[in-house]
Amino acid sequence: MMKGLLIVISAPSGTGKTTLVNMLMRSFPQIEFSISCTTRKPRPGEVDGKDYYFISLEEFEKKIEKNELLEWAEVYGNFYGTPKDKVLKALNEGKDVLLDIDTQGALQVKKNYPEAVLIFILPPSLKELERRLRSRGTEDEETIEKRLLIARRELSLATRYDYIIINDRLQEAFEKLKSIVTAERWKTQRVKEHFSELINDREMLQLLNT
Amino acid sequence: MMKGLLIVISAPSGTGKTTLVNMLMRSFPQIEFSISCTTRKPRPGEVDGKDYYFISLEEFEKKIEKNELLEWAEVYGNFYGTPKDKVLKALNEGKDVLLDIDTQGALQVKKNYPEAVLIFILPPSLKELERRLRSRGTEDEETIEKRLLIARRELSLATRYDYIIINDRLQEAFEKLKSIVTAERWKTQRVKEHFSELINDREMLQLLNT
Repeated sequence: MMKGLLIVISAPSGTGKTTLVNMLMRSFPQIEFSISCTTRKPRPGEVDGKDYYFISLEEFEKKIEKNELLEWAEVYGNFYGTPKDKVLKALNEGKDVLLDIDTQGALQVKKNYPEAVLIFILPPSLKELERRLRSRGTEDEETIEKRLLIARRELSLATRYDYIIINDRLQEAFEKLKSIVTAERWKTQRVKEHFSELINDREMLQLLNT
Repeated sequence: MMKGLLIVISAPSGTGKTTLVNMLMRSFPQIEFSISCTTRKPRPGEVDGKDYYFISLEEFEKKIEKNELLEWAEVYGNFYGTPKDKVLKALNEGKDVLLDIDTQGALQVKKNYPEAVLIFILPPSLKELERRLRSRGTEDEETIEKRLLIARRELSLATRYDYIIINDRLQEAFEKLKSIVTAERWKTQRVKEHFSELINDREMLQLLNT
């Protein structure tokens, strides 16, 4: 069984990340979306175990103590974390896992799991980001201002990612995203670990492994 | 102008490399195929400056002395080399350059130009390779034996490449090849060098460069 890819995608709010992630999941059904746990209260319609695992602050603290989270972060006073056991199990079963997390979390993942593939999606400009956030019409002025501030902090970590995609035209950005996922699967470092599953020819295997 | 990618593709004779390279060139018209120089005599129909630059052994030696070749190799008593000036000029003009060369040459290129992307195409098995070589019906027994020997030596260098693709099903191998070329363009290392051309927003540029 070829080990799955751990794909981490981050982007400032309003960049179009959720749309791109949904397109990617439809296009690659073998990708599993990791469900985070959070101390935030469920919003109307949110389902425990589907949108998030809703847990108490106490339970969250325990998970941190026991090193059961691949990464975690505090956002607007709530805590969010990625359960390590579920992610590693899926990867070992050959499934790719997608994490949609913030920059703090992404860099924690890279530290704990260096094979992770980090992809940062950029808006074409801060002006365009602001325009997109306002055109949603769902957030008040203060929330928009906060999001723009956080966007600025996140942008300053973009170059620590493995890939940077600019979401100017959605379809083009999607093609790039898909290509990255496909290409990463065929990196020598990765293929090498799975020669014996991929190649059914003993002499060729021997030559490759010399 | 975003600098072009230097793409190096190698594969044992009979793997289907030429077909894949032709498909790739049709699919990405911005890729330039590098024309090698050779001391081999032109075959009927071969055109100087199109198939190869046909030069004398003396001229070839001079090119090596003057360090004018990005890589060179001896194959069946003839010399083949890649003119450095033409390749670097095209890359600086933002064109991608594709080199279809042997493993010795590919590793020389990686040494001289570490940003080069090296892709090795594997046959599904040595048996299948032999079958494909024989089914061509164009080569005598001795040539086939020689090619199979050389294939074995080349396979033992495959893991030095950046990517390994198995050409089991042509269309799948082609999709992988295309994805690698697209993904490589959006590696942070590369995008970083071209932020100012890609992003038209001074504040965002500043944040990215901190």
